[in-house]
Amino acid sequence: MRNKNSGFPHSDQHYKREILYIIKIGGNVIDNEKSLHGFLETFASIDHKKILVHGGGKIATSLGDKLGIVSHYIDGRRITDDATIDLVTMVYGGLVNKKIVTTLQALHCNAIGISGADANALPAKKRPVKSIDYGWVGDINKENIDPSIWQILLENKLVPVVAPLTHDNAGHMLNTNADKVASVLAAALAGTYVVQLIYCFEKNGVLNDANDGDSALAYLDMNTYRQLKENKKLFAGIIPKIDNAMDAVRNNVQTVIIGNSDFLVQLINGEGGTQIRL
Amino acid sequence: MRNKNSGFPHSDQHYKREILYIIKIGGNVIDNEKSLHGFLETFASIDHKKILVHGGGKIATSLGDKLGIVSHYIDGRRITDDATIDLVTMVYGGLVNKKIVTTLQALHCNAIGISGADANALPAKKRPVKSIDYGWVGDINKENIDPSIWQILLENKLVPVVAPLTHDNAGHMLNTNADKVASVLAAALAGTYVVQLIYCFEKNGVLNDANDGDSALAYLDMNTYRQLKENKKLFAGIIPKIDNAMDAVRNNVQTVIIGNSDFLVQLINGEGGTQIRL
Repeated sequence: MRNKNSGFPHSDQHYKREILYIIKIGGNVIDNEKSLHGFLETFASIDHKKILVHGGGKIATSLGDKLGIVSHYIDGRRITDDATIDLVTMVYGGLVNKKIVTTLQALHCNAIGISGADANALPAKKRPVKSIDYGWVGDINKENIDPSIWQILLENKLVPVVAPLTHDNAGHMLNTNADKVASVLAAALAGTYVVQLIYCFEKNGVLNDANDGDSALAYLDMNTYRQLKENKKLFAGIIPKIDNAMDAVRNNVQTVIIGNSDFLVQLINGEGGTQIRL
Repeated sequence: MRNKNSGFPHSDQHYKREILYIIKIGGNVIDNEKSLHGFLETFASIDHKKILVHGGGKIATSLGDKLGIVSHYIDGRRITDDATIDLVTMVYGGLVNKKIVTTLQALHCNAIGISGADANALPAKKRPVKSIDYGWVGDINKENIDPSIWQILLENKLVPVVAPLTHDNAGHMLNTNADKVASVLAAALAGTYVVQLIYCFEKNGVLNDANDGDSALAYLDMNTYRQLKENKKLFAGIIPKIDNAMDAVRNNVQTVIIGNSDFLVQLINGEGGTQIRL
């Protein structure tokens, strides 16, 4: 367990900038109505500026199956053809985003759903075709994100709920990994707010041993990360998440935590999850 | 043809409030990519505060067919069961809304997609079950709409693109007729802005003879409306649209026009369509 006063914002008297929580939830929470509701209750109660970034969940795949849209993956990334970008726009930008927004509104949290096209919030470049054509996939970087639109929303006490969709400024929605959206958005806003980035998923953090769910590390730095990778101790899917988390730390995001969505209160209080360091 | 100076805002020196255009497009424009693009080009070029309200188009029905969701209608209104509210949330709030937003962004119009749940923009009451159970259908009235959220968006040069979805503040999205949304929103904002409400559809206005597409009336008042109804001169579907338009006039919306979406420039300039009066 980490010391509560080790760099968490409530112990930091040096900043005049306000605290902003950026919290990312993944598919496992979204697919479970009870988990989602409990999570959103905690999220709604956070008494700071906040942004929720959500992934997609399994519903895009199951709906795609019903519609005869076959999902193709390369290296864990969905290949986004014409039918798939429409599918994820409907599911991520429509169904999932609005389910979260309506639930938060019922919890007296003034949520506003945002895709990357809305208010030009997340401009992106379609990924160039090299050996693989990923289709309608967007690459984003912090330099292209204008903090002012986010400030307008946040300063007016609105709570952005962000679908993992970006756009190319040429009329096309693009599919972008939700962990990446959270990382880049946190980096883009780190000059304006004291950003606390929390990645929530189904495990207690980065595990020292992939087979032991109780082996979450309190901290993970680059050295330990390298060792875990060399010893093949890391479970599938965690590596890109850690890379996104490390990128955020490198870009002046004050605190980056990876932890269990069932324990959001503890993650916020610095009493759980794995804190990512360089 | 109406006189250009007959009550149109650019001839009105008495108001200090700013002009706000609220423009509603229906399914026929949305279903035709070329018409939609032309329409949005004109909309993007309007040099005033503006809101676009869109209907759904046929895609919800065709997608519902593929998913085995059967659409039921009573009196032209879709009965909105659990599967249908998810369907229209996906299609209206996701696919259609984001297609319009991405297109407007490409036209350098800073659009932001809004459903009634986002920012609590359109709170509604689920329609009470009397002889008919309409399901997840929302009734709205102007008293429940807080103009301040709309002002925040408009004053920050954002252009709301409104899907015909409202919410019950208890976690449920509700289906609401897009003509009604446009009328009630116009009424709610009439105290803050000089509102110009334009209903765009596939005809040149309210026709004096339903069989003659060139017989659009320059004006329609209550007396003429009653006569046309008595003489069964009105074509199907126009009556609720006129009723919504009349409601807007009664609620201090300065100008209400019904006209052809292919001629938006003329409608804005007061050179086409039917102006609704009491």
